Amino acid sequence: MSAAGFASTPKPPYYAVIFSSQRTEGDNGYGAAADRMAELAAQQPGFLGMESTRGADGFGITVAYFDTEENIRAWKRNMEHAAARQKGREVWYAHYEIRIARVERAYNFKAPQID
Amino acid sequence: MSAAGFASTPKPPYYAVIFSSQRTEGDNGYGAAADRMAELAAQQPGFLGMESTRGADGFGITVAYFDTEENIRAWKRNMEHAAARQKGREVWYAHYEIRIARVERAYNFKAPQID
Repeated sequence: MSAAGFASTPKPPYYAVIFSSQRTEGDNGYGAAADRMAELAAQQPGFLGMESTRGADGFGITVAYFDTEENIRAWKRNMEHAAARQKGREVWYAHYEIRIARVERAYNFKAPQID
Repeated sequence: MSAAGFASTPKPPYYAVIFSSQRTEGDNGYGAAADRMAELAAQQPGFLGMESTRGADGFGITVAYFDTEENIRAWKRNMEHAAARQKGREVWYAHYEIRIARVERAYNFKAPQID
């Protein structure tokens, strides 16, 4: 989850998994596991991209994009992902909220490049 | 937008505005304007809450929750908000992506409090 940056998503509709979380103190293997989960998510059918950031206060938001709700459910059933979520509840997170949402419309802005 | 923390949202369905952004260098009045926009958003009809964070690399995600798409459109038409967005494109943001999504389901986790 170290990759800062934007997901290149197709035209809507598609789905977003909005994961807001408050980390506990200390790394406790979190960084390596988060990187592994980002890698594993990217291999899932229907994965469209991910955006993730966390402030110095330990509050973070990750949004993963998928083509269908069924592919989100399949990712939830992935055994390695399920084991990581279990460890997340035991060790890494004080609190999290997960929201599954259907992206209806999207637009963007990029500043002109000045050389 | 300094408030770290979770939005207390009702049972789905409701709507999310997912705003991913890369800041330019320097504050240039951004911090005060972001605080003002968070205050103004919270006064809008149908506003349900907001979650926001930004990493040291300047990449941030803010998710604002509203009850209906119509109330999101009304917030977009707010004149002070429109002026802030214009300044955002001119000064504060190198790139942003906005996605309007309908939250279909949600669940959460809170660690037991240990005293």
